[in-house]
Amino acid sequence: MGAHHDVVWQTYAISMAERIRLLKQSPFVLWFTGLPGAGKTTLANAMAKRLHDMERHAYVLDGDNLRHGLNRDLGFSVDDRRENVRRTAEVASLMYDSGLITLVACISPFESEREFARGLFPTGQFVEVFVDTPQAVCEQRDQKGLYRRARAGELSNFTGIDSPFERPESPELIVDASESSPAQCADAITGYVIDQGLLIADWTPPEQ
Amino acid sequence: MGAHHDVVWQTYAISMAERIRLLKQSPFVLWFTGLPGAGKTTLANAMAKRLHDMERHAYVLDGDNLRHGLNRDLGFSVDDRRENVRRTAEVASLMYDSGLITLVACISPFESEREFARGLFPTGQFVEVFVDTPQAVCEQRDQKGLYRRARAGELSNFTGIDSPFERPESPELIVDASESSPAQCADAITGYVIDQGLLIADWTPPEQ
Repeated sequence: MGAHHDVVWQTYAISMAERIRLLKQSPFVLWFTGLPGAGKTTLANAMAKRLHDMERHAYVLDGDNLRHGLNRDLGFSVDDRRENVRRTAEVASLMYDSGLITLVACISPFESEREFARGLFPTGQFVEVFVDTPQAVCEQRDQKGLYRRARAGELSNFTGIDSPFERPESPELIVDASESSPAQCADAITGYVIDQGLLIADWTPPEQ
Repeated sequence: MGAHHDVVWQTYAISMAERIRLLKQSPFVLWFTGLPGAGKTTLANAMAKRLHDMERHAYVLDGDNLRHGLNRDLGFSVDDRRENVRRTAEVASLMYDSGLITLVACISPFESEREFARGLFPTGQFVEVFVDTPQAVCEQRDQKGLYRRARAGELSNFTGIDSPFERPESPELIVDASESSPAQCADAITGYVIDQGLLIADWTPPEQ
């Protein structure tokens, strides 16, 4: 374990308030959780496109892509999945602190790590979106062919097959990509963040 | 190890070129390496202030602060130090990809991990700044009292005392915070990035 009690916190010369005044926006986090193939990446990117069109600065942290870089040392055991989500949450926290609207697409199968992630952000700034597409639909689509391989025993520790997915207990939003198109889901998410005051058309800078 | 060959790379809806056009800047990385107490954090923050005053969007990744979050599971063994720098470099790569000018203050004592970091960025976009303040000066200042504790045997694996620091072989810049004030060092760094075309007063968006 880290001896972080020996490490002194360094104060930054430029504060988050100064960064977001320059960016002309207030950040928040959209955290997409759900089974493989539920539509998390599709929705995160649909929201990234919308935010970009609204001239908001956003960034997508995609769980699959992080496994090619930051999390490439991690596998799919329960412990590695927990660490995978922990690191993803910590990076999301840094992105948020930089002032960027941060969109996370990550299976994040366990409630404890999703709650850890939530705890890194001010109340109301973390929006958990449960992409609750029925597993039968995810498996039928199987765009990456991974369910087929998991059923064939070629992949182990696959979420929904031989690794558990704990349904979110109190997500801010639930969308079902089998009943709604990506655009409809993005409408619901956009409506929510506007209703919550997270996305404001006429943005004014915060007080220093 | 991760079975990342099973993980499909997800393409983003918004490209880096689109992000940086909206941000009205091109990102680059300033990587500050050096002994504890050399002045890395001070210089990273001095540059963050300058960039902010120039209305550039930047973010500081401070090695000490990352040890309170992303890297809190890591200690100070050689292996943990390598992993600490690897993760820091991967996060810097994400920040850079988001379009932010990324300032890293991290002892990063080993050439191999600094070279790994460099390899994550396009040629010329990674600027290694060796803060080559003599150890005697770092130790005399000892602002955090850590050299004293390391000499007293209260801290082990302390860089410069009982953990090695490999001098950078070919940094883009060398500054010595014992000979120059932080403002003078920042002048040298600013001059370099302007000379290299990394920082342009009249920024024009890249071609799509």
